[in-house]
Amino acid sequence: MDQAPPLPEINHQSVLIEGGLALDCGVHLRQLVVAYRTYGTLNAARSNAVLICHALTGDQYVAETHPVSGKPGWWGEMVGPGKPVDTDKYFVICANVLGGCMGSTGPRSPHDDRPGEPWGIEFPPVTIPDMVRAQKKLIDHLGIERLFAVVGGSMGGMQVLAWAALYPAHVFAAVPVAAAAFHSAQNIAFHEVGRQAIFADPDFHAGRYWQHEAIPARGLAVARMTAHITYLSEAALSRKFGRKLRGADSLTWFGDRFEVESYLEHQGSSFVRRFDANSYLTITRAMDFFDLAADHGGVLAEAFRGTKTRFLLVSFSSDWLFPTAQCRAIARALNHVAANVSFVEIDSDKGHDAFLLDEPDFTRTMRGFLAGAAEAAGLT
Amino acid sequence: MDQAPPLPEINHQSVLIEGGLALDCGVHLRQLVVAYRTYGTLNAARSNAVLICHALTGDQYVAETHPVSGKPGWWGEMVGPGKPVDTDKYFVICANVLGGCMGSTGPRSPHDDRPGEPWGIEFPPVTIPDMVRAQKKLIDHLGIERLFAVVGGSMGGMQVLAWAALYPAHVFAAVPVAAAAFHSAQNIAFHEVGRQAIFADPDFHAGRYWQHEAIPARGLAVARMTAHITYLSEAALSRKFGRKLRGADSLTWFGDRFEVESYLEHQGSSFVRRFDANSYLTITRAMDFFDLAADHGGVLAEAFRGTKTRFLLVSFSSDWLFPTAQCRAIARALNHVAANVSFVEIDSDKGHDAFLLDEPDFTRTMRGFLAGAAEAAGLT
Repeated sequence: MDQAPPLPEINHQSVLIEGGLALDCGVHLRQLVVAYRTYGTLNAARSNAVLICHALTGDQYVAETHPVSGKPGWWGEMVGPGKPVDTDKYFVICANVLGGCMGSTGPRSPHDDRPGEPWGIEFPPVTIPDMVRAQKKLIDHLGIERLFAVVGGSMGGMQVLAWAALYPAHVFAAVPVAAAAFHSAQNIAFHEVGRQAIFADPDFHAGRYWQHEAIPARGLAVARMTAHITYLSEAALSRKFGRKLRGADSLTWFGDRFEVESYLEHQGSSFVRRFDANSYLTITRAMDFFDLAADHGGVLAEAFRGTKTRFLLVSFSSDWLFPTAQCRAIARALNHVAANVSFVEIDSDKGHDAFLLDEPDFTRTMRGFLAGAAEAAGLT
Repeated sequence: MDQAPPLPEINHQSVLIEGGLALDCGVHLRQLVVAYRTYGTLNAARSNAVLICHALTGDQYVAETHPVSGKPGWWGEMVGPGKPVDTDKYFVICANVLGGCMGSTGPRSPHDDRPGEPWGIEFPPVTIPDMVRAQKKLIDHLGIERLFAVVGGSMGGMQVLAWAALYPAHVFAAVPVAAAAFHSAQNIAFHEVGRQAIFADPDFHAGRYWQHEAIPARGLAVARMTAHITYLSEAALSRKFGRKLRGADSLTWFGDRFEVESYLEHQGSSFVRRFDANSYLTITRAMDFFDLAADHGGVLAEAFRGTKTRFLLVSFSSDWLFPTAQCRAIARALNHVAANVSFVEIDSDKGHDAFLLDEPDFTRTMRGFLAGAAEAAGLT
């Protein structure tokens, strides 16, 4: 991993937003690029658009081969022709988040004030609402007044909640999945050890690794490995690996004696080939900052007062990163303001990552909710 | 942390065991030193000895001020005059584990074959049964034929189980707390990210940091931080820290914005002042190797067949590192061989670390069990 190549330069489809973006931290980003992909066709009434919000390490390639990894789109179970988010029916949009490293403005983008240099570690801190405001500018650019639905899991679900709070009139239906209205102390703690691992890597060079033609690959890999454990359940890890051994039954080995270890090593090393460390710092921090109730005087319900958006909240029984209780708290807040809300806990032992996997109950739930909402929205 | 001083040299009370120790890995350790502390008085019948087994980062200073940190003994709630493990009544022994760094033979000890050099990273891999065999040699040295009780939590509980399996005739009562008969895939995974963080630290120097007058302080701190999160519950972290902020409400800070972050940072940096990285690697590996059923043809009950030892098994409801289900599996195996076993799940929201904290239900349970066992053992 020490010789990890720099991230490949790819021409992502994108739009340069005029006027830039005023961030929560007070900085005005003069250059705002939003990279995005679309699938399906916008109807004449411009009323069938579905925005998919991606998770921490996701990107805009939701339903097609990934240009770096060559793997299928990250939400192939959910988005595509005939899938619950049916690209034969809906115009699906997915944008790389602000602060990301797949074409949207982020730490790898040109510095506003230093020609020829990237932002790097000096990229201003962004928030989940900042990400949503950038997406809103993309939606405006596409000439879409109201999104039929905004859908996302994990950090994507946080964005869905922020969309519903910031732009209620522009969201007909909202589906936050495996998400929460705030980032818990435990989740902040796990993010922090990942960041400390990156900071501790000598190839990090105080965030200016690009000047040294280096990548903090070992630190970023450790961060990814730590996070990856939290995405799975104990049951999923036990079923997948248990205590299975690789190679000879020797007591002398470190590192790849157990299958779970080589799996994690693979997760770590493949991640550094497609993700930028400064982006990882920026985006984990955005999640840590997220606290929708705090933004509304400490009362979560106030974030949604008067909303006409229809909500489907989904949690997974074995998700210990965003446990059902946190999802239920959102349902309670929505009930408090008499919102239209369904709340489903999907029984699954696959942990947080269940939202990305083939979970028939989940896809059925999504299909049913979107069909009902489409009818209510007057979509054929 | 970069200028972390080397571990202090302390004269620990210890015994040099004649003949050394044959390890599970096939290596014969020629030099075996066991560092230990005792509290209370051995009775004339030599029948009132209680062995306390410590956890991963514990040591022999169970009931007195720690010579490095200056903090009270790590199990002050449980061991001392008038405490459940009553030093007015019992002769309490606690030994630093084999592979440790507080005086027992481990990576910091002189290499068997290279005069003037420590073992360092070349210290042979040890197992939990190896640790127990070293303790047995100490007990023999002390002239104790049968231990009244062997008690320990977490990795200490693994040692208790190994004691009961290896030396059933020498253990009257066994109390494994917050433990399991094997290390789960999730636990191995968390250990592995900690080890990878140590390996990634340039000050690790492939395990020969002592030759460079360096300490892999950053990597070891990240390992400790990661592990520390797993010792707590989400509820404990939320109650203790929630999303409380330190200092000004600025979005520009990494690292110590949230109180939970500075707490973790403190846990990491204080740890490196008292613990050796190669010991951490050795001991985490010993835990990963532990699988008592595998050592007995895949049937856990076989580890205990014919046992006359009385068992008290204790788990904590919010412990997700060694969940109650894993403790229940031990109870089931013991029931299968008609052993004398009590199994108590203590209701606590403090996570794995609950066994070290003031949990009245736990101390009451321990007190009651030991009193009953003492009566059965003919101790006044």
